[in-house]
Amino acid sequence: MNRPHLLITSAGRRAKLVEYFVQEFQEGTVSVADCNPLAPALYMAPNHHIVPKIDQPGYIDHLLELCQREQVTALLSLIDPELELLATATERFAAIGVTVIVSPPSSCLLCFDKYAMFEHCTLQGIPHAKTYHALTSFREAVALKEVGFPVFVKPRNGSASIAVRRVETLEEVERLFEQSPGLIVQEFLDGPELGVDVYVDLLSHEVTSIFIKEKLTMRAGETDKSRSVLRTDVFELVEHVLAESGLVGPLDFDIFDVGGTLYLSEINPRFGGGYPHAYACGVNFPAQVWRNLCGLVNQPHIGHYQENLYMMKHDTLTLVSAAQFEQTKH
Amino acid sequence: MNRPHLLITSAGRRAKLVEYFVQEFQEGTVSVADCNPLAPALYMAPNHHIVPKIDQPGYIDHLLELCQREQVTALLSLIDPELELLATATERFAAIGVTVIVSPPSSCLLCFDKYAMFEHCTLQGIPHAKTYHALTSFREAVALKEVGFPVFVKPRNGSASIAVRRVETLEEVERLFEQSPGLIVQEFLDGPELGVDVYVDLLSHEVTSIFIKEKLTMRAGETDKSRSVLRTDVFELVEHVLAESGLVGPLDFDIFDVGGTLYLSEINPRFGGGYPHAYACGVNFPAQVWRNLCGLVNQPHIGHYQENLYMMKHDTLTLVSAAQFEQTKH
Repeated sequence: MNRPHLLITSAGRRAKLVEYFVQEFQEGTVSVADCNPLAPALYMAPNHHIVPKIDQPGYIDHLLELCQREQVTALLSLIDPELELLATATERFAAIGVTVIVSPPSSCLLCFDKYAMFEHCTLQGIPHAKTYHALTSFREAVALKEVGFPVFVKPRNGSASIAVRRVETLEEVERLFEQSPGLIVQEFLDGPELGVDVYVDLLSHEVTSIFIKEKLTMRAGETDKSRSVLRTDVFELVEHVLAESGLVGPLDFDIFDVGGTLYLSEINPRFGGGYPHAYACGVNFPAQVWRNLCGLVNQPHIGHYQENLYMMKHDTLTLVSAAQFEQTKH
Repeated sequence: MNRPHLLITSAGRRAKLVEYFVQEFQEGTVSVADCNPLAPALYMAPNHHIVPKIDQPGYIDHLLELCQREQVTALLSLIDPELELLATATERFAAIGVTVIVSPPSSCLLCFDKYAMFEHCTLQGIPHAKTYHALTSFREAVALKEVGFPVFVKPRNGSASIAVRRVETLEEVERLFEQSPGLIVQEFLDGPELGVDVYVDLLSHEVTSIFIKEKLTMRAGETDKSRSVLRTDVFELVEHVLAESGLVGPLDFDIFDVGGTLYLSEINPRFGGGYPHAYACGVNFPAQVWRNLCGLVNQPHIGHYQENLYMMKHDTLTLVSAAQFEQTKH
């Protein structure tokens, strides 16, 4: 059995997650890449590499070359815009012996297209916030009182909470649609938001872990405080949504509980920003990644964690000298 | 010599700073208070207390009672709105043997009133962003081309970056002034921003430490990445500004470098959110607080740190069980 060498790309500020991987890959190697030499996650692993921005032509060629030079055997990206890029290049990586930990391109696309996700959920009978991609259909729905205000106006293909607006009037929705193309309107779901971390085994394609947290406070678009919860209905919803979805690896679900009915809000087909809460509660995805990369199947352990553990994020810091910094850049 | 017992109030998310105090008060005690049992800084010290919100009537009485019960000898708040409250109550605390680490009320007031600070700087010959508290004088200045766009519109008494708007036209400034009272207009300073951590000895009233960092990236209103710099002109400006200001203890300056001219932007008469960068570079305020509380004067050590050390913040987390949480609340 070869020891895996995982390269984590676009690692950014996710230092804690890199630390967990380093911890769980004691029989193996973890390297980190980012385009910004001031990405703190770079410095959590002994091997770090500055790479071009993901939108540069030749980015994938650069990664392929880096993987070959450093004998990398697996690749994991932490940001949305890189996933499709990697998903469509898995064969090129496979040809040099690198496993890309990513869902297939069609599954990634579904997750990133909020309107397609709404249509998919409607077809599958999964409750989802009512979503409109055309002003005409939204106006009609308002006239028919199918949807009320406030609503959210967001980019159809947006990531995280970027450019999400809470809007109170039809006129404001119309103004926003005039200003920018590619927007959707989504109904406001009034209830607690659950963040759910899910692992789908890369080999068996079975759901092996589900961790549920209630989001208590947000900060800079991320969960800042949360509470672990155990709910069978959420476990069932996740399994239902994932059946035949093609999604694999670490996933992050947003779900709203509106008076006891669960509404799927979105799926991010990657590690969620709130995953450290799950790890701290013993729900260990990096160890499952390691086992998968060693050719071992993980057994399902759904709901094996303690409920009512409160997680609070706070800051820590890393110091790098100009000399180290220059060394990293070259 | 009695060992000091410091109570840090409104500690919030500033876990790292509390950790430093615990580290430096090995001969002494550190306790922490906050109104929110989910404030992570609470859990960095063995003794933590949930207190009323600072705007509750009886807040000061509650603190006095707590100090007496726990034999607290000194008090330090980490947030702006509490400073004036404590500054006007220092005698009540002194009467029970508690030193409040805070500047006098008039000095605090000056720091929190952006227009007063502008007038003060103008009188002292200290460059400061041009500031207008009346629409008429701003319109006049625009007509005379004394000030151009963009400008910043902010609350005259605002804290941090709350409700600060970058505005491009006179019409927009007029609209904002119509909507809310208590606004000022400030000229836009185009240049690198420096964050400066300063310690003024509580006993000698001398400036003992100055740490300068260039702010490189902001996040959620705080410095996220910065670089340590050594600049004699900044040291001189800080000493000039502080002479006869009455300000003592830990202070946080914001300064803009506009083509080599230093403009004072604001002074926060408390620990700055970026202070951990200074501590990591060896500029130790908690140790100076400890010495002062032991009756010892600190000697000036201006500029004793390494330049070109890059600081990157990232997240860590603290987990608290529902049981611990309940225990803290009572």
